[in-house]
Parts: sequence; C-alpha cells; structure tokens
Amino acid sequence: MNSTINTLLSHRSIRSFTEQPIDSSLLDTILNCGLAASSSSFIQCVSVVRVSTAENRSKLAEYAGGQPYVESCSEFLVFCADYNRHQQIHPEAQLGFTEQTLIGSIDAAMMAQNCLTAAESLGLGGVYIGGLRNNPHKVTELLALPKHVIPLFGLCLGYPNQNPETKPRLPKSIVVHQEHYQPISLDELAQYDAHIQDYYATRTDNKKAVSWSTQITQTLSKEARPFMHDFLQKQGFNTK
Amino acid sequence: MNSTINTLLSHRSIRSFTEQPIDSSLLDTILNCGLAASSSSFIQCVSVVRVSTAENRSKLAEYAGGQPYVESCSEFLVFCADYNRHQQIHPEAQLGFTEQTLIGSIDAAMMAQNCLTAAESLGLGGVYIGGLRNNPHKVTELLALPKHVIPLFGLCLGYPNQNPETKPRLPKSIVVHQEHYQPISLDELAQYDAHIQDYYATRTDNKKAVSWSTQITQTLSKEARPFMHDFLQKQGFNTK
Repeated sequence: MNSTINTLLSHRSIRSFTEQPIDSSLLDTILNCGLAASSSSFIQCVSVVRVSTAENRSKLAEYAGGQPYVESCSEFLVFCADYNRHQQIHPEAQLGFTEQTLIGSIDAAMMAQNCLTAAESLGLGGVYIGGLRNNPHKVTELLALPKHVIPLFGLCLGYPNQNPETKPRLPKSIVVHQEHYQPISLDELAQYDAHIQDYYATRTDNKKAVSWSTQITQTLSKEARPFMHDFLQKQGFNTK
Repeated sequence: MNSTINTLLSHRSIRSFTEQPIDSSLLDTILNCGLAASSSSFIQCVSVVRVSTAENRSKLAEYAGGQPYVESCSEFLVFCADYNRHQQIHPEAQLGFTEQTLIGSIDAAMMAQNCLTAAESLGLGGVYIGGLRNNPHKVTELLALPKHVIPLFGLCLGYPNQNPETKPRLPKSIVVHQEHYQPISLDELAQYDAHIQDYYATRTDNKKAVSWSTQITQTLSKEARPFMHDFLQKQGFNTK
C-alpha cells in the first residue's frame, strides 16, 4: 500500500465543489500527467478543450442533460478524439477507419484518467460527463470541432464540497476471468446485488432501493444514443 | 508535487522484465485499483482476461505481430468491452449501439490505466499491447469470448529489466485548446519535431532518425486495421 494506491482506491465522483479556483500551475501539472499517458503507436490523437466562460459552461451543462456541476466546477475539460491534427500535417491521411475510433477513445480515456488521478492526489475531486454525448452535434458546434474530431466526454474538476462514500464495484471474481471467458456466477451476482442495494439504501445522498441487475436491466431496455452511429460518420469516423 | 504525480510523469513503456513474479496480493491490489475507476452510467461493461499459460501467451505474442514481452512478462491482462454479462442478466437487452462501443472502450481504458498506475507506483512496469487488434478473431477464439465481447488491448506487467527514457509528448500548447478548437501552430510543431528527432537519435535503444510528423505521415498513409469494422459487427457491436 502507498499513497497512489490509496488515492486510486478512494475514488468517488465529486459533483459539488467549493468556489476555490485551481491554481494554474496545478492545472498545468494535472494536464502534464495526462499527456504522459501511453499513446497507441504514438499517434497522439487526443485533444482537450478547456471551457471557462460562464456562457459556454451553461450551454454544456444543458447539452449534458442538465448537470449543474458542469457550470460550478473550477475547471471543465472536454476530451476529444482528434485526427484533424494529422490531416493538417498530412492532407492525404487515410482516415475514417473504425480502428481509429477505438484508438481515439482508448487514448483519450487513459489521458483523462491520468488527469483525474493527479487531481485526486492533490486533494481535488472530479466527475466524468458522458452526458455530453446526449448532444454531440451541439457540443461539436459550440467547441468549433472540425471534421475528424469528436467530443467523447467531459471532466469536471475542483475542490470537493461533499464527501460521498465510495461505490461498490462488481467483484474481481466476476470481472476478471482466468485464461478463458466464464459466464457470470449467479450466486456472486446475487451477493453483489444485495451489496449494492444496501449501499443505495444507506448512502448519504440520493438514497434509492434498486439492485445492480435491476438498474442495468432498466438502462439496457432503452436505446443507447442511437444517433451516435450517424454522428460519428458525419464527423468522418467509422466510415469504413 | 507528490509521489503520485511523480509516478504519472515518469511513465515509460517497459518491454523487458526480470523473472520475478508479481505476488498475488500485489496483483489483487492492482486489479482492485482498476475496478475503482469510473464506470459510465454504472454499466460496468469491462471484463479482464488474465492469461497465464505459456501456450496461450505464445499464441497471443504471435497474434500481436510478434511481441515477445507478451510471453516474458509476469502478468498479461486482456481488457475487453463486455455486454454479454448484461445479456446473461437481461436476455432482451438492447445491444449493438455504437454508443456502447464508445462506453466499453473508454471504461476499459480507464480501468487499465488505473492498473498500470498502481503497478508503476509499486515499482513494476508495463506496456499496452494494441497489437492484439491485429488478429481480433483469433484472440476472441483463444479467450473463448462470446458475442457482445471484444478484446480491446493487452497489458504486460512485471518488474522492469530496463530503464528507458520518458518519451516527449506533444506539448500542452498543441493538445489543449481554450474554449474552441484551434489549428496546429506550425512553429510549435516544428519545435516538437526537432525535439522528437533528438530523442530518437540519442535514446539508449532503437535509435532512429525521424520526426513525429514524418512518423504519423507514414503510419496514416496505410490503412488502419480495415477488418475491424466487420469484426465489431460480427461480435454484435456497432450494428446500429
């Protein structure tokens, strides 16, 4: 055990922030930690848009489905897969491959996770905003993202004004398979469902009575942003 | 500055490992750090396959295009996007959405990055193996991944037997945009290209003479795993 392990194991999303700004040298450190993450084949296909104006923050909070912490956090970063950069350098670049969408998503997430870990190690907190994908066209327009750039998710950062519990994850016995994929153990799932129900019933904020199985059954009974298929193609991704 | 920041900023891929195994309690800690990462809408759609047998490691090293450290590392983990788990719980789950591929890729990468950071904080090193996507059908067959599961990348972990330099990344001034997307500054790109040429010319191993712009021009003049489009659809991803 060390302080990095403690930081990683203590992660919980923070959605309420004090008004204390993040010092620009701290933000630089956080971003440098993000840049230090691995890059597939050294393609470096991630861009980050830092959004600071109240007007733009307000619009992004709305586009994300009404998430007020997009406005109230100290820093808001939008992580994008970016192959426009490469097209500027090499106008004949072969783009649009589904593989390149995977690389962009994976590399952006690794960079962002380094930023969040660095921030948490400094006493800050944050939450990812996948809700930006509710309105990807509007986010793209607001941030003036050109073709071959897509917004993937946002990251709110700031000094925590709340202290929520960590949320129990699926156990290793379900997530980690040895040598070959194994179907889920119904006993272990039942135990986890009971654990999550207890967590939701007793946590400080937003108590509810639902198991994980019920929750994902509800979520996956609905379509998942069906417009994403066409949006990606319009931006020049997943065309082949 | 703190030890977590130092760990993140000191990252470099390790491809040569001693024979020292990773203690099972350390591996548990590393995996628990991975599990603690954020999960989009709490869908928890990541599975990890730990591959230990020499025979399977040898096959994966070959499928990845001949990467011997897949065999020689102490631990090899394959990170997968997994919605089969949800289908087992909810057979009528609506799957196949492009959005779900994004969630799976992003969440798997965040989990993996936590594992790598935890490992590095403990004195271990590692390298991601995107090369598994050279032969996704064969990897899928070897790991017995069912429909709605795709292998995204591997992670080699072990005690370092080399001490390579950190590799200079694109500067913040190019990667981070304020408020709106900005085209690349050709001056800054030229500076970075010179920096990378110097890095390649003077590093300990695998010296070469190439700028980043030249490197990505070469890479992006070729198709990027054009079979990925059909592979994903066959596994039940990106079908709508």
